Amino acid sequence: MNHALVLRSLGFLLLLEAAAMTIPLGVSLAYGESEYRALALAALLTGAAGAAMYLGGRTSVEGFGYREGLAVAALGWVLVAAFGALPFYLGGMFASYVDALFESTSGFTTTGATVLVDIEAQSRGLLFWRSFAHWLGGMGILVLTLAITPIAAGSTKVFQAESPGPAPTKLVPRIKDTARILYGVYFVLSLAEVVALSALGMSLFESVTHTFGTMGTGGFSPRAESIGAYDSPAIEMTVVVFMLVAGTNFALYYRFITGDRGAFWEDREFRAFLGIMLVGTALVTLNLRHLYYDSLLEALRYASFQVASILTTTGYTTADFDRWPEFSRAFLLLLMFVGGSAGSTGGSVKVIRIILLVKYAVRELHRKLHPRAVMPLRLGRTTVPESVLSGILAFFVLYMAIFVVSTLLMTLEGLDLLSAAASVAATLGNIGPGLGLVGPAENYAFISAPGKLLLTLNMILGRLEIYPLLTLLIRGFWRE
Amino acid sequence: MNHALVLRSLGFLLLLEAAAMTIPLGVSLAYGESEYRALALAALLTGAAGAAMYLGGRTSVEGFGYREGLAVAALGWVLVAAFGALPFYLGGMFASYVDALFESTSGFTTTGATVLVDIEAQSRGLLFWRSFAHWLGGMGILVLTLAITPIAAGSTKVFQAESPGPAPTKLVPRIKDTARILYGVYFVLSLAEVVALSALGMSLFESVTHTFGTMGTGGFSPRAESIGAYDSPAIEMTVVVFMLVAGTNFALYYRFITGDRGAFWEDREFRAFLGIMLVGTALVTLNLRHLYYDSLLEALRYASFQVASILTTTGYTTADFDRWPEFSRAFLLLLMFVGGSAGSTGGSVKVIRIILLVKYAVRELHRKLHPRAVMPLRLGRTTVPESVLSGILAFFVLYMAIFVVSTLLMTLEGLDLLSAAASVAATLGNIGPGLGLVGPAENYAFISAPGKLLLTLNMILGRLEIYPLLTLLIRGFWRE
Repeated sequence: MNHALVLRSLGFLLLLEAAAMTIPLGVSLAYGESEYRALALAALLTGAAGAAMYLGGRTSVEGFGYREGLAVAALGWVLVAAFGALPFYLGGMFASYVDALFESTSGFTTTGATVLVDIEAQSRGLLFWRSFAHWLGGMGILVLTLAITPIAAGSTKVFQAESPGPAPTKLVPRIKDTARILYGVYFVLSLAEVVALSALGMSLFESVTHTFGTMGTGGFSPRAESIGAYDSPAIEMTVVVFMLVAGTNFALYYRFITGDRGAFWEDREFRAFLGIMLVGTALVTLNLRHLYYDSLLEALRYASFQVASILTTTGYTTADFDRWPEFSRAFLLLLMFVGGSAGSTGGSVKVIRIILLVKYAVRELHRKLHPRAVMPLRLGRTTVPESVLSGILAFFVLYMAIFVVSTLLMTLEGLDLLSAAASVAATLGNIGPGLGLVGPAENYAFISAPGKLLLTLNMILGRLEIYPLLTLLIRGFWRE
Repeated sequence: MNHALVLRSLGFLLLLEAAAMTIPLGVSLAYGESEYRALALAALLTGAAGAAMYLGGRTSVEGFGYREGLAVAALGWVLVAAFGALPFYLGGMFASYVDALFESTSGFTTTGATVLVDIEAQSRGLLFWRSFAHWLGGMGILVLTLAITPIAAGSTKVFQAESPGPAPTKLVPRIKDTARILYGVYFVLSLAEVVALSALGMSLFESVTHTFGTMGTGGFSPRAESIGAYDSPAIEMTVVVFMLVAGTNFALYYRFITGDRGAFWEDREFRAFLGIMLVGTALVTLNLRHLYYDSLLEALRYASFQVASILTTTGYTTADFDRWPEFSRAFLLLLMFVGGSAGSTGGSVKVIRIILLVKYAVRELHRKLHPRAVMPLRLGRTTVPESVLSGILAFFVLYMAIFVVSTLLMTLEGLDLLSAAASVAATLGNIGPGLGLVGPAENYAFISAPGKLLLTLNMILGRLEIYPLLTLLIRGFWRE
C-alpha cells in the first residue's frame, strides 16, 4: 500500500470539492442570502484540509495497484460526504452533524433520502449544494477527478473501483479520455433537461436542481411535494424520459454518436431495462386502475412515473405510492433491488447483474441433466468470463447479507419490519423514499443517530457496490 | 427418458402409500370412528392406481439416469400428495379438494401450514394420517422406497434427487443399505421421543402424532394451540431437544454409533447449526425480556422453543410470536431462510449452504486484492468442488426468485406485503406458520384456491430443493 500516494489523491479530491462549493456560494450571493458565509467557510475548511493532505502526501513513481484504487474510492467517498456536510451544518440546516452527514451522503451517493423536515424554508444556496451533490456523485466524483486531474498513474484502478457494474469498459485507450467523454455526454444531456424543464415553465433554479436530481438519479427536490408539486403531465413525462436516459449505460451514447447506430438495440441490458420499464408500468397501471384511480390514463400517468423513478433509483415522486394497493407496493419494493444499467448513474444491483444471475441459474438447471457438459454463458455475441460471474454472485450474496443484517438492526430502532426493510432497501439501493414510516410522504428525520449512521453506511456501500469498503477490512490490506 | 421405468417406479410408490394408509385405518377402527371408511376407500383407490401404473410400466434393463431420477422425485411427490389428500376429502375434513391437497402436501413436505379451522373436532384416524405424512415425508418417501423396494437400478439418482443438501453422501457402498441405516436411526429416535413424551404425561395418541411432527420437522399438532396447549416446560424442552435432533444431519448419528466419537464436533455444519440456535435464542431472549415478558427465564423459555422450531423448520408454537417485538419477528422471518442441516429432515436453504455462500463471498473479497490467486474453498479438511459451489449459488438465486415472484402473486390475493412474503417464506421453507395474516394464531384457510395451489407448489419446490421440479420444464427432458 502506497500510503503517500493515497493521501495525495484524497487531498486532491477535497481541493476539487472545495472548488465545487464555490458554485453554490455564487448562487447564495446572487440571491443575497446570509448562508453564503457557511458555504464560504465550508469551502475554506475543505480546501485547507485538502491542501494539507495533498502537500503531506507525494506522487510516487510506482503507480496505483488494486489496493490503492480501492482505498482511494472508499476513503474518498467518505471524506467527500463528511466535508460536504459542512455547509448544511454550518448554515444551520441541521442542529446535529449526523443529520448533515446523512443529507450530504444521501446527496453524493444519489440516494435522495432526506432528514430535512421543512424543505421549502431553506435557502437556495444550500438547496443548490444539496442537489449539486447528486450531479457530482452521479457520474462519479473520482471519474470527474480523472477527467481533470494531472495525476494519471493508476487511474484505471480508480475508475474500476468506482464505476457501477460488474466489468467497466474503457471507451478509448486512455482512461482520462474515457472520463472526459462520459462527463461530456453527461453535461450535454443535463443541459438538454434544463432547457426542456425551463421551456415547460419551471423556474431556472428549480430546472437546474431537478436536473441534478434526475441526471444523477438522486431525487432531492427543492419542493416538498417533489415533482408532484407541479401537477403537470408534460413536466412529469419529461422527467420520466430523462430518468430513463440517466439509467442507461453512458457508453451507449458514445457508441451511438460515433456511428454505431445499433448501439442501443443490440445491447441486451438496455433492452431488458426498457422491458422492465414497460412491463412494470403495465402491471402497476392495471393494479392501480382497478383499485386506486378512476381512469386508465391517470393510472398510467402515475404508474409510469413511479416505475421509472424507482427502477432508475432516482426516487422522485408524484404520488404517495405507499398508499397504493399491495401488489404495486410489493412490485416497487422489488424494483428497488433491480436498479439502473451498468455504467449509468443509477444504483442498486443493476439490470445486467439480474440478467446474468438468471442465466446462471438456468445454466445450472441444464447442468443437472448434463453434468459433464461445458456450457459457457453467453450474452449476445460475447462469452461472459467465469470470474465476472463469480464476482456477480458474491455481490448478490453480500448485498442480501447487508440488507438482512441492516434490517434487523433497524427493527431495534423502533421501525416495524416492513419499514425497516424498506429503509435499508431504499438507502442501500440509493433510491430514497421507501415504504411505511420512510414512505414517500415521510422522511428519515425521526430515526435515531445510530440508525442514521447505519443508513449512511448503507448508502456508501451501495454506491461503491460493496467491495471497496469491505476490502479495507481485510487483514493485510493496509500493509506498505 | 425411460418412460416405462418411471411409470413403474411411481406405481410402486403409490402401492406403498396405500399400504401406509392402512395404519391410520387401524387407528380409526381402534377408536371406533366412522371415518375408517374414507381411509379404506382412499387406500383402495391409491392401491388400484398404483397397481395399474406398476403393471403398465416395466423394469427396463437400462438403469436410471439423471433424468429418470429427477422425474421420479418430482412426479412422485406430486402423486403422493395428491392421493394422500383423498382421506381428508373423502372423510369430510374439507369440502374442497384443493384444501385437502394443501393439507396433504403440507403434511408430506413437512411444512405444517394448515387450512384446518377446527382441528380438535377432527377424528383421530384422519389426524393420525395428517401427522403420519410428516414422518413419511421427513426422511424422504423415496428413501423409504429405496429401503424396502426390490428395484435397485438407478437408486443413487433417486436418492440424490430427493435428499436435502448440496451433495448427499452414501454412508455405505450400497445405497439401499444407506437408506435402511437412515430409516433405522430415524425410527429409534422417534421411538425415544414417544417414550419421553408419554413419560411426561402426554397421551399415547398425542405423543405419537407430536413425534411425527417433531422428527419430520413438520409441525402439525392434533391440538389447536400446538405444543403451547400443555403449558409444560418439561414437554417444551423435550420437543426442543428432538427438534434439534431432527434438524441434524442423520449421517452424523451413524458415524457416531460406528465409532467416530468426534463426528458431531468436527462437523462444521453441526457447530454452525448449534451456534445459530444459541446466539439466536440469546438475541430473541434479550429482545423479549425488555419488551414482552417479565422474567428472563420466561423469555428464555419461549424464545428457545420458537428459535428451535423455526430454525429446524418444524413450526410448532408455544406463543403467538407474531405479537412479539419487531426484532424478534424479523429474526424469526430471517431464520425461515436458514433451515436445518443437510441430510436432516429440516427444510429451507440449509445451514451448510449458508456457510458456503458466506465463504464464497469472502473469497471474492480477497480475490479483489489478488485477482490471479487460485483460492480453493475449504470446509474443515475438505476442499469444496467448484461445481458444488455453483449449484449452491444457483440454488440461492432460484430460491430468492421463486420467493419474490410468489410474494408478488400472493399480494394479488389480498394479503398485505408482509403477510404475503411470510406466507411464501413459510411454505417454500417448509416451516408452516408465518407472520401477519398467516401468523401462528391464524391459518391458511382464508386464502383463495389459486393462492392455495401456489403455496402448495412452493411447498413441493422447497422440499425437493427446486431443481427436480424445474428441470421437468426444460425442453428435451421428456425425450425418449
